[in-house]
Amino acid sequence: MSSNFAFDAIDLATKDRDHLIHPWVDLGTVKEREPLIVAQAEGAYVYNVHGKKLLDGIGGMWCVNAGYGRDEIADAMAAQARRMAYFSPFGQIGNPPAIEFAHRLTQHTPGDLKHVFFTTGGSTAVDSALRFVSFFNNFHGRPKKKHIITREYAYHGSTYLTASVSGKPADRGNMDLETGFIHHLPAPNPYRRPEGMTMEAFCDAKVKDLEDKILELGPDNVACFIAEPLLASGGVIVPPEGYQKRTREVCRQYDVIYISDEVVTGFGRLGHIFASKNVFDIEPDIITSAKGLTSGYVPLGAMIVSDRLYSTLTDKAGRGQIFANGYTYSAHPVSCAAGMANLDIFEREDICGHVRKVGPYFREQLGTLIDLDMVGDVRGSHFMVCVECTADKEKKTVPPAEWEVGRRIFEKCQEKGLLARPMGHLVVLSPPLIVNRGQIDDAVSILRQSIVEVTGDLAREGLRK
Amino acid sequence: MSSNFAFDAIDLATKDRDHLIHPWVDLGTVKEREPLIVAQAEGAYVYNVHGKKLLDGIGGMWCVNAGYGRDEIADAMAAQARRMAYFSPFGQIGNPPAIEFAHRLTQHTPGDLKHVFFTTGGSTAVDSALRFVSFFNNFHGRPKKKHIITREYAYHGSTYLTASVSGKPADRGNMDLETGFIHHLPAPNPYRRPEGMTMEAFCDAKVKDLEDKILELGPDNVACFIAEPLLASGGVIVPPEGYQKRTREVCRQYDVIYISDEVVTGFGRLGHIFASKNVFDIEPDIITSAKGLTSGYVPLGAMIVSDRLYSTLTDKAGRGQIFANGYTYSAHPVSCAAGMANLDIFEREDICGHVRKVGPYFREQLGTLIDLDMVGDVRGSHFMVCVECTADKEKKTVPPAEWEVGRRIFEKCQEKGLLARPMGHLVVLSPPLIVNRGQIDDAVSILRQSIVEVTGDLAREGLRK
Repeated sequence: MSSNFAFDAIDLATKDRDHLIHPWVDLGTVKEREPLIVAQAEGAYVYNVHGKKLLDGIGGMWCVNAGYGRDEIADAMAAQARRMAYFSPFGQIGNPPAIEFAHRLTQHTPGDLKHVFFTTGGSTAVDSALRFVSFFNNFHGRPKKKHIITREYAYHGSTYLTASVSGKPADRGNMDLETGFIHHLPAPNPYRRPEGMTMEAFCDAKVKDLEDKILELGPDNVACFIAEPLLASGGVIVPPEGYQKRTREVCRQYDVIYISDEVVTGFGRLGHIFASKNVFDIEPDIITSAKGLTSGYVPLGAMIVSDRLYSTLTDKAGRGQIFANGYTYSAHPVSCAAGMANLDIFEREDICGHVRKVGPYFREQLGTLIDLDMVGDVRGSHFMVCVECTADKEKKTVPPAEWEVGRRIFEKCQEKGLLARPMGHLVVLSPPLIVNRGQIDDAVSILRQSIVEVTGDLAREGLRK
Repeated sequence: MSSNFAFDAIDLATKDRDHLIHPWVDLGTVKEREPLIVAQAEGAYVYNVHGKKLLDGIGGMWCVNAGYGRDEIADAMAAQARRMAYFSPFGQIGNPPAIEFAHRLTQHTPGDLKHVFFTTGGSTAVDSALRFVSFFNNFHGRPKKKHIITREYAYHGSTYLTASVSGKPADRGNMDLETGFIHHLPAPNPYRRPEGMTMEAFCDAKVKDLEDKILELGPDNVACFIAEPLLASGGVIVPPEGYQKRTREVCRQYDVIYISDEVVTGFGRLGHIFASKNVFDIEPDIITSAKGLTSGYVPLGAMIVSDRLYSTLTDKAGRGQIFANGYTYSAHPVSCAAGMANLDIFEREDICGHVRKVGPYFREQLGTLIDLDMVGDVRGSHFMVCVECTADKEKKTVPPAEWEVGRRIFEKCQEKGLLARPMGHLVVLSPPLIVNRGQIDDAVSILRQSIVEVTGDLAREGLRK
């Protein structure tokens, strides 16, 4: 691979510091630290700008589900760009790839979720879904149904509204958020449940949190509940068994719209195109999707709405009703062509079947790290797993931020050929869905060795006893 | 073209109705009306699903600036998708196309606007810019600087926040918007200025609107003023001469951040890569860009921040400061590769020079329509022009919505081979920037004939006297 490498690492690092603002970077350290510049990729591997090969443990960022270097997707994008790179989808204008992809998606959606509104990614999919809900309720003469219920440690996007329904404490800082009509329930995180509480009792309590909040606000004032089936960026939180189905029932009981945010869990990460029905046995009112939708090859998001909701807008009563929402790049023909090529690969290679077969091995092997002194919890499912480090295994103490546990492990892993994703004291692994057992063994072995070394370093530096 | 046409128009129309939700569509009419499905394109022309050739008078939607069928952009996208379709830009991770494109963009930006934050389109660029402003002010200990000043008939996007700073009355309806910290000034629309008022006096009044609002709210409470140099989707409103420069000065005087939203005016539409400095002689604090940035071939947006603002965050004081904002598809390598190929075309073919030469002809020829009885105003600049229809030329009366003037003209134009963009009683033209004089003559002639015919139809139906 290094033979055709022609990157000027120093020049790139300089331009990077001088001109590119990165999301979620510690601004005060940008000038000092060396950026990681990733330049090429193939299969489940990426290569940094020096030609070093790294197993991509994070799948781009939970998104390169079909793996890198898929000529088929590149060809589909180029062919569509030549045929017609773009045309407006506003009003009653459409293009064949968007129409065909909408149709194909609805062959995989649960229940009556048959209507697709394309956006530019997960943030805009959720932003549009939330705006659709209030539009829907206003249209139906329920203008008081405005309150949104979400959860601590949820992640639903980065626009002002979607960041406000997210709940990661670390993302607050100096960022302004809407608080007037948004309510956060405690995260359904079994690792942090009260000592001695059974999982069943914990599930009861978390379902009750939702019902209590609806009753507190008044069902007539509650618009929707938004939930990732597993809370992804908040640390791969796996709610107790039955939680998704029971919260869905609570929403039905009180006429609260249920939005299942499948940006991460969709497109195979849990072994199905959509996880809501096949894994958690729920039929949401709205599903939001992105990331794996195109395997990240090009930006695309979608909100998918049930016929039960949508059909009330398209009869005669809907005359003059305009859902004044959407993006220039909604229904982008190149993005939708990429999405179809990606879905072709999923169907032909049965990537979901591979995940159902190999995903449990991945989860199980990462689970063996629990024997390490600094590992407090390993959680997740299939190709979506998080390792939580702790300063005290018994007391489940969060390591002090200044230990920089996540960053240290990230750097050790990188030296040894693995990219993992640090999030504070957590390390997340969500590889491309095509990884095999050998690659899984490599990843687990590197991560184990890295955690051991970091544990030693922390002790040597007198930080960890 | 029709020889290789293999689209099943009926099948597509059915799937479209059943599965694709369109932005800004009248929901109650979706089932009855025939969708316009656009399937192929070349140069300045698109072809509908039946193979009918149409001159694209709207440039996709103000975005296909370099024209359709650019192999060079398609090739760049495919090559990057093969090399590395995606990798996370979060934290201090980067990829060569994003770094190089950020660097190249800053060679075209005015003043010290040297720092680029990529997003997925115009909405997310503006959403991020507004969130950056409040983050910046919070960091600098000015948490009261929260209020945003914008204008009626502005258009800045479709997320909850960016829709709220937009000001098109037609986009309100049943949509919920934030009102607490957002303030709309009257549009600086010379056509609607008080009778007898000179342009100079009107400019004074519109500048005073801004200063009065800042003083009313208190300068310590005002975060920013956001403005398109020309208000695009609000009907190509051209503020009086000197307005942009004078409002920029007012903002400087009261320490209010000035955001120039160049999503439409950028990338050649007014004859320059960015219009702020070269056309309007202003150096904003932040520029937002999208659309022409990739000629619409793939989703991409950008907010570009001045060194004056950004450098205060990247010294030691910025340690631990995280701008917790960004998108999976920020700095997308495929989008940035497309952006660079697009910029190559702009530079090599001097598309801006072509616009500066031919744009005035386009504006002038459309200006001749003012002799028509139903045309009240023609306004705009270069390849960004709006024709406003009126029920009474003297009184400047807006035609009743039920006349459906825009839609009628749109349909007549389409029959004759031109796609124009109806917005209520306005018709907007914003073609690809590569159009030649012959194509301009065709467009103007078709539009003239269509307006004449619609005028006759309205009279025959007894609607218009």
